[in-house]
Amino acid sequence: MSSSDIFASEVIGTMVLVLLGGGVCAAVNLKRSKAFAAGWVAVAFGWGFAVLTGAYIAQTSGAHLNPAVTLALAMKSGKGATPWSDVPVYIGSELLGAMLGAVLVWLVYYSQFQVTLREPDTVELKSSNPNPGPVHGVFFTSPEVRKPLLNFLTEVIATFVLIIAILTQGLVKDVDGTVGLGKMGALITALVVVGIGLSLGGPTGYAINPVRDLGPRIVHALLPLPNKGGSDWGYAWVPVVGPLVGSAIAAGVYNLAWA
Amino acid sequence: MSSSDIFASEVIGTMVLVLLGGGVCAAVNLKRSKAFAAGWVAVAFGWGFAVLTGAYIAQTSGAHLNPAVTLALAMKSGKGATPWSDVPVYIGSELLGAMLGAVLVWLVYYSQFQVTLREPDTVELKSSNPNPGPVHGVFFTSPEVRKPLLNFLTEVIATFVLIIAILTQGLVKDVDGTVGLGKMGALITALVVVGIGLSLGGPTGYAINPVRDLGPRIVHALLPLPNKGGSDWGYAWVPVVGPLVGSAIAAGVYNLAWA
Amino acid sequence: MSSSDIFASEVIGTMVLVLLGGGVCAAVNLKRSKAFAAGWVAVAFGWGFAVLTGAYIAQTSGAHLNPAVTLALAMKSGKGATPWSDVPVYIGSELLGAMLGAVLVWLVYYSQFQVTLREPDTVELKSSNPNPGPVHGVFFTSPEVRKPLLNFLTEVIATFVLIIAILTQGLVKDVDGTVGLGKMGALITALVVVGIGLSLGGPTGYAINPVRDLGPRIVHALLPLPNKGGSDWGYAWVPVVGPLVGSAIAAGVYNLAWA
Amino acid sequence: MSSSDIFASEVIGTMVLVLLGGGVCAAVNLKRSKAFAAGWVAVAFGWGFAVLTGAYIAQTSGAHLNPAVTLALAMKSGKGATPWSDVPVYIGSELLGAMLGAVLVWLVYYSQFQVTLREPDTVELKSSNPNPGPVHGVFFTSPEVRKPLLNFLTEVIATFVLIIAILTQGLVKDVDGTVGLGKMGALITALVVVGIGLSLGGPTGYAINPVRDLGPRIVHALLPLPNKGGSDWGYAWVPVVGPLVGSAIAAGVYNLAWA
Repeated sequence: MSSSDIFASEVIGTMVLVLLGGGVCAAVNLKRSKAFAAGWVAVAFGWGFAVLTGAYIAQTSGAHLNPAVTLALAMKSGKGATPWSDVPVYIGSELLGAMLGAVLVWLVYYSQFQVTLREPDTVELKSSNPNPGPVHGVFFTSPEVRKPLLNFLTEVIATFVLIIAILTQGLVKDVDGTVGLGKMGALITALVVVGIGLSLGGPTGYAINPVRDLGPRIVHALLPLPNKGGSDWGYAWVPVVGPLVGSAIAAGVYNLAWA
Repeated sequence: MSSSDIFASEVIGTMVLVLLGGGVCAAVNLKRSKAFAAGWVAVAFGWGFAVLTGAYIAQTSGAHLNPAVTLALAMKSGKGATPWSDVPVYIGSELLGAMLGAVLVWLVYYSQFQVTLREPDTVELKSSNPNPGPVHGVFFTSPEVRKPLLNFLTEVIATFVLIIAILTQGLVKDVDGTVGLGKMGALITALVVVGIGLSLGGPTGYAINPVRDLGPRIVHALLPLPNKGGSDWGYAWVPVVGPLVGSAIAAGVYNLAWA
Repeated sequence: MSSSDIFASEVIGTMVLVLLGGGVCAAVNLKRSKAFAAGWVAVAFGWGFAVLTGAYIAQTSGAHLNPAVTLALAMKSGKGATPWSDVPVYIGSELLGAMLGAVLVWLVYYSQFQVTLREPDTVELKSSNPNPGPVHGVFFTSPEVRKPLLNFLTEVIATFVLIIAILTQGLVKDVDGTVGLGKMGALITALVVVGIGLSLGGPTGYAINPVRDLGPRIVHALLPLPNKGGSDWGYAWVPVVGPLVGSAIAAGVYNLAWA
Repeated sequence: MSSSDIFASEVIGTMVLVLLGGGVCAAVNLKRSKAFAAGWVAVAFGWGFAVLTGAYIAQTSGAHLNPAVTLALAMKSGKGATPWSDVPVYIGSELLGAMLGAVLVWLVYYSQFQVTLREPDTVELKSSNPNPGPVHGVFFTSPEVRKPLLNFLTEVIATFVLIIAILTQGLVKDVDGTVGLGKMGALITALVVVGIGLSLGGPTGYAINPVRDLGPRIVHALLPLPNKGGSDWGYAWVPVVGPLVGSAIAAGVYNLAWA
């Protein structure tokens, strides 16, 4: 397909992914939200169905929505690989879409951000989580225990699971006979993401997608939020490099074991 | 299909949608319900599976159940568009079904309404939500922070997500080969609605469907409930106009980007 | 198929349905269970996936598992109706399977029943629910507010939703082309049951299946449980007659509107 | 397929199964995890989607991931049975994969293990559960009430449900036409495992898979964790023998009733 078709599809799909994914973080963490303190089950299902929705919307471009997916599909052996020449437009579209999604989260939860930021000291979360602040958590991930190499390792392993599950789906014919992800494949991938969130999200908040973290972090740095604090650029490399390394390992294992 | 077939299918389907959707609000908010205080995860899944059930029941008419869906399917380019001449019977059926559904919720939870309304001051909700009352919440949506233009914007964005996801589903052949929604499409749409609820429902309670709010609001105004309070007609335009505007924007984006 | 094939399939399927369904009630209500006080979301999903599991196991006989389903499939017009001559073997198998399932729940949770019954006064449930006792709730349903005609109406409406959703599924070809429920149909039905539980289960605990209530109630009356209390036979007609009436209404509406 | 293909597929699939399954136990039980105290619903869905992910990854080998599944598929009558000569490579691969998965859980949650083990007395769980320790629960199952024969019976019954549901799935043609589990079959099996967890997991923590318990238990015994306590070898036979006996009974019932 043409670069402009990839661009439209991936921008809108990734925008919706981050709108719903960042949205559930806002819903659970910000005051005066009906879902306040709804807990980790809400977060994990919210991100999973964010993937489902974004994947449906972007199915004509294969619904990458994630540079780690784009990298793995370019590295994989055999048919269905993404041409390396398409990789820049995919990654650019994904980053732009993620930034637009973060702006939409800010608009949807405008009043909730205002209320929460006005009274930052009275926020109580129902966990032992020494969160740097509920507003940060809407935009970018933060580790519970800040040890960058261990946090990096967690992101590598979690992304490995995501990517190996996506690559092996192509091993059986999809029920609807279409090229690309297919309806059942999108559903399965979404539930795999719920599973990764429930099981591997505890230490770092499972970025598993460079633009899901970097895009909203840039928006956080730019938005005129009062009392917003810094954008924690010192940690920003972990949720970018970790998922890419995990993806490359998964693609290598796939090529060795199955392709 | 004939107008009477559309009528029967959409009335019953929307009735069940609002029966189950209003039902979960009653289940969670009213006293002496086994699901009392079950939380936002219950609400989001309850509304999603309400869509699933209603969509199955109304599949012969395409399972619109929502004037925002009807509008988008009339506006969309290409095959599968709803004829504009069918729009009035769809919308009329949807509104009537929503009103019937609200009456059924009242019958199912008759004792719970009585108990809750008798002691309105002792109700405690497990959130910081300054809810105008648990009984209102069974019938119509209310914003957490009342700023009509921001609330309107939230409904526009949330409905945009719903409609763009519905329109793009038609881009791949459905697994069961039927015209219209299909079984997998109904399941996906239901899970998208769960996702919208988890992620974007926090500020306004996500009407994303004009009749889901207006129909039960009319019933609330008519029902002989003691201590029921007003029906908040000042806010009623937001969950009607917001979803229609979001739907029109989604149809326009779809026609530009994919059709 | 032969009566003995129906018998084997429906006995085992209904046994598993009640084992998992009663099991989740035990898991949430009995002391010294890892799922103690896990809440209504656990109960609703537990019963839904009990239906899924039982329906898969019993797919060769059409997976009725419920006299309300058998009645509706016998009453429905058009092809796929169950012969009236098969109705007795279906209902007998369903009742026997439900009784066996209740016995298995008792074996699985033997220690938990003992601990809970030994200290019946110290049980605290996390709701305003004046439950007649956690042990009762494992075996049979009880209304939160005991008004038999209203409770009956609730069961009629909830079962109507279940049955109309099952009947209308036959209107589109199933994805796997098999006669009977099919894999996607079983999944959808299970999620509809989750939805009914979340939305309509609050007042009476949603029997929506005569044998799911009557079978375990008989077992409760027979089992040598200390301090078990009575088996509440005065209420037993509601979860038997209500579902059958709801089923008959649904079949009538289906025959008028769609068949 | 060749033994080396089975080996690669089952090792990686079971590794991911135990990584995600042990991961959700770590996420919920260890301090400084974002999912701390997320509850039993999180655990049940986490294990279910662990099965989904592992099953997808290992679909080329039929996705056994569990010696109880291997045993039943070897015992079953009719086509699709696993040759007895393949059983050793399946079981060996499953055990190795489970051990690798447990090591990965330890790496992902390295900091959380350290924090939790440093302050073992201050851990508070939100249940009446006299858990021998949150760290144990990440590696192996423990009964709430230690009565080995009753615990054994619980594991037999829970595994019977799993296996009979897997065996009967082959009775209808799979939607995607592939040999083996298929995409829909993997999804259904995963949701059955969620159901077993919600409904039958209360007494023993539902091993229902010998290597899911034995593999991580061996790793627990070997890992250099401070204050880790013993590995409870006295109980280790229950989650190994119970699932195998439940599997054999299920295969026998299947061969009598359906094959």
